[in-house]
Amino acid sequence: MARRKPELTSKIGWSTPDRITVHGLDLPTEILGEMNLGDLAFLLVKHRKPTPEESRMFNAVVITLVEHGITPSAIVARMTYLGAPESLQAAVAAGLNGLGSVFVGSMEGAAKMLYDALPEDQVGTGVDLDALAVKTVADYRARKQIVPGLGHPVHKPIDPRTPRLFELAAQNGFSGEYIALMRSIGAEAEAKAGRPLAINATGALGAICCEMGFPWFITRGFGTMARAIGLVGHILEERENPIAAELWLRTDEEILRNCGPDAAKAPDKADHKG
Amino acid sequence: MARRKPELTSKIGWSTPDRITVHGLDLPTEILGEMNLGDLAFLLVKHRKPTPEESRMFNAVVITLVEHGITPSAIVARMTYLGAPESLQAAVAAGLNGLGSVFVGSMEGAAKMLYDALPEDQVGTGVDLDALAVKTVADYRARKQIVPGLGHPVHKPIDPRTPRLFELAAQNGFSGEYIALMRSIGAEAEAKAGRPLAINATGALGAICCEMGFPWFITRGFGTMARAIGLVGHILEERENPIAAELWLRTDEEILRNCGPDAAKAPDKADHKG
Amino acid sequence: MARRKPELTSKIGWSTPDRITVHGLDLPTEILGEMNLGDLAFLLVKHRKPTPEESRMFNAVVITLVEHGITPSAIVARMTYLGAPESLQAAVAAGLNGLGSVFVGSMEGAAKMLYDALPEDQVGTGVDLDALAVKTVADYRARKQIVPGLGHPVHKPIDPRTPRLFELAAQNGFSGEYIALMRSIGAEAEAKAGRPLAINATGALGAICCEMGFPWFITRGFGTMARAIGLVGHILEERENPIAAELWLRTDEEILRNCGPDAAKAPDKADHKG
Amino acid sequence: MARRKPELTSKIGWSTPDRITVHGLDLPTEILGEMNLGDLAFLLVKHRKPTPEESRMFNAVVITLVEHGITPSAIVARMTYLGAPESLQAAVAAGLNGLGSVFVGSMEGAAKMLYDALPEDQVGTGVDLDALAVKTVADYRARKQIVPGLGHPVHKPIDPRTPRLFELAAQNGFSGEYIALMRSIGAEAEAKAGRPLAINATGALGAICCEMGFPWFITRGFGTMARAIGLVGHILEERENPIAAELWLRTDEEILRNCGPDAAKAPDKADHKG
Repeated sequence: MARRKPELTSKIGWSTPDRITVHGLDLPTEILGEMNLGDLAFLLVKHRKPTPEESRMFNAVVITLVEHGITPSAIVARMTYLGAPESLQAAVAAGLNGLGSVFVGSMEGAAKMLYDALPEDQVGTGVDLDALAVKTVADYRARKQIVPGLGHPVHKPIDPRTPRLFELAAQNGFSGEYIALMRSIGAEAEAKAGRPLAINATGALGAICCEMGFPWFITRGFGTMARAIGLVGHILEERENPIAAELWLRTDEEILRNCGPDAAKAPDKADHKG
Repeated sequence: MARRKPELTSKIGWSTPDRITVHGLDLPTEILGEMNLGDLAFLLVKHRKPTPEESRMFNAVVITLVEHGITPSAIVARMTYLGAPESLQAAVAAGLNGLGSVFVGSMEGAAKMLYDALPEDQVGTGVDLDALAVKTVADYRARKQIVPGLGHPVHKPIDPRTPRLFELAAQNGFSGEYIALMRSIGAEAEAKAGRPLAINATGALGAICCEMGFPWFITRGFGTMARAIGLVGHILEERENPIAAELWLRTDEEILRNCGPDAAKAPDKADHKG
Repeated sequence: MARRKPELTSKIGWSTPDRITVHGLDLPTEILGEMNLGDLAFLLVKHRKPTPEESRMFNAVVITLVEHGITPSAIVARMTYLGAPESLQAAVAAGLNGLGSVFVGSMEGAAKMLYDALPEDQVGTGVDLDALAVKTVADYRARKQIVPGLGHPVHKPIDPRTPRLFELAAQNGFSGEYIALMRSIGAEAEAKAGRPLAINATGALGAICCEMGFPWFITRGFGTMARAIGLVGHILEERENPIAAELWLRTDEEILRNCGPDAAKAPDKADHKG
Repeated sequence: MARRKPELTSKIGWSTPDRITVHGLDLPTEILGEMNLGDLAFLLVKHRKPTPEESRMFNAVVITLVEHGITPSAIVARMTYLGAPESLQAAVAAGLNGLGSVFVGSMEGAAKMLYDALPEDQVGTGVDLDALAVKTVADYRARKQIVPGLGHPVHKPIDPRTPRLFELAAQNGFSGEYIALMRSIGAEAEAKAGRPLAINATGALGAICCEMGFPWFITRGFGTMARAIGLVGHILEERENPIAAELWLRTDEEILRNCGPDAAKAPDKADHKG
């Protein structure tokens, strides 16, 4: 389970009295004032600076994941702040804890599906992408799994982020076989399902992460760093325009009304199935 | 304790089937490809886009807080990932939980000290900054409190980030009375302490946050979002070059050696003072 | 800031191939089957087994803190579970993050107030408790602080837990000067406020923790361990009878209605005060 | 993904001005002073009070999971407390975040394996347990999976908790077909592996949880509530006898020595594989 290692090492960086480096770059002179925040995130993941094209694309990828209105993670951060306003960092942390399989799963899933169908060493070898798409969709349908990255409960008929992300990919040299494969999978899934299934933002981002050569599991890290930024915004709004207390009290009152001593039909006291 | 609010509202943004806005900007066309990640964070805090000068300065502020090597928060994130590798987001969250008074306190403290000494509405009114510095240092010494933002256990005699941050401030129009006051406070504290006390990075950042008009309590949010990015980098390194298991097992073995049944001096079993 | 320590030690316990001890007790033979869960918690805090009276009292203290219906921490745990059902532990953790100054503060505050007024070494020396109460209430009123542990938004005119906790304290030998002082403070605060201010559960628990000799800061630990148990109960109910998704979607829809593109009065876009 | 529900309900309990109930029991008169902490946890999971036998068994189950010395979760809680001593609850929360698949997985896995092999409705129907064991072990070996609940890195040749837990099970009426099946699986796995593979504590606990009729997924909740108690003990020890700072500084220094500017072999700066 646990791997022993006689000497602890890290390539991330080091500090001496007069120097601070991150992945070989001097923080004061080569990073501060020279890179933006997204570029630094890229450096930490890729261990090198992005090209200008990578910088534009990667900043857009992470930015897409920052803010989605009143999500469960935003409600969690605001409710946590209500009880512990002295610990802003703990409110952000609580909000991040819920970025699991349900909400982040589809970006991860899209990237993994694309890499599984088209391993990186087969890119550029003339693989028939439409045939891959047919096989991929058939496999998901046989397993009764949802094809990740398609459709959206709100954004219909198309997700307005998708065409813009694909446009940026084209402008910056990242519109290759993974995006083509994702499009082909979308078309095939739509045909088989018999209803519109446009590529949503997580499908577009998953494909772009493959184009940029990021391992599929890193996408959850991009979602996590992005949401940390978004949650700080929610907590600041909660300070000025609080909603958490109201949400809590409404819920408490509704449950008392429905299940308390005066409820028309009191909750049963039957033994638990477990 | 809890404020009721008949109608829930939020200014952050909204989504409709074909549109997504964040603080009044259209995400696909006005943000994606147009702003970098630091700019979006600025938007969420200030509710408007940064100027080019604000963009350069603010990206540098947050970047300074991203990565500091093997800190307690990095160890926490790596140890958590060891036990729950399926939950990368929870490992980041655990690491953020420790960004409390001890580590983030000095940036917050520096910004608050500067605003307390020089309220925003007195900037530009000809206040005697040296007199303010003398009074501020005297107050801290009388309360036996450490003046925040001065000195560093590793970076001596100067913190290499400070001159670069102040240089960027000057280049971008943010070198005003708060930085001057911070410098004056540093000089006065040094004189009274009789030993070198250079302005460290948190002191420089605190002063710059005042120059940019950020409330002091927001600085903890900047530290939190920055560390979330840094911790993703640590978790990715932990996947490839793990150190958490070795750290754990060494610790466990040392304590068994010192306090286990074969220890020369077994731990006492005296009742707890509590 | 950071204390160095040449040798790492711990008195909590150790494991060898055939033995496991906790504070000097053999886990298999002296703890399993011999102690209940509250007794083990007492052992970890006091470093000795409780007497039968301490066992009854301490189990009641922690039990009082386990479950309070749909609190913010319960909503947080349920919302987190909605996004990451594969990480039950992270949902509990998120819920605990909000047990800060607002909700746990009053028990801590009551215990600290009582110890500050009557240090442990003055118990039994004939101090005039009514005079202490007058001075304590006057001090809080002068500082415009709320006297902790009095009054309750729901439980009026009395908190039904308080008489039962005090009854248990009397039955088990813990009804001494701290409970007497708490009662005197309550009476004095009521007289000065001119309205009913009965001792609530956190006031009763704070006083009992003083009677049992626990440091005031430990009370937050009791609240934390108790709520972890309560939150597991909420997550299990959320599996069978989910409410988090409904709460989220209602909130999202209300905010869209109030602040979205069709709102009668769109949210203003004014620059942030910060 | 998200289930709508027109009316929010909860069976856990309710509060009115003069009453507080938990699963139909009056907290002040039927719970406080009448139940111990483990009994209350049982009530929250089973929605009824335990019998005396269930009380003894269940308290022992949870107690087994409370304290395991300097585990990763204990290190995480202590390191978090180092940075945020004002947020004890956040340090416990951080420690819980790592109770994922690696450490809690084997208890869950053992319970799930037993239920999959012997569904509850087949207990008492004369199923051939040895044949089930042979099939179960063969299935795990065919999938190249480790049979959960067997063997231990420290406790050899037997885990001292297992015989005691099984003894308590026998004394309290819980030594039925699930424990028999676990034993049979252990014997079969040992025979096939050709090396000792005694049932460890998580295997024993998994089997006992099946005997008590708990769903397999609840076992993670038991581990979580138990560790919350244990982590409070670690944080209190960290206050009096800190080790986190020393651990951090040693680690930081070792990495600087191995990878800093003066390291014999500086870390490579090669591009990341990702």
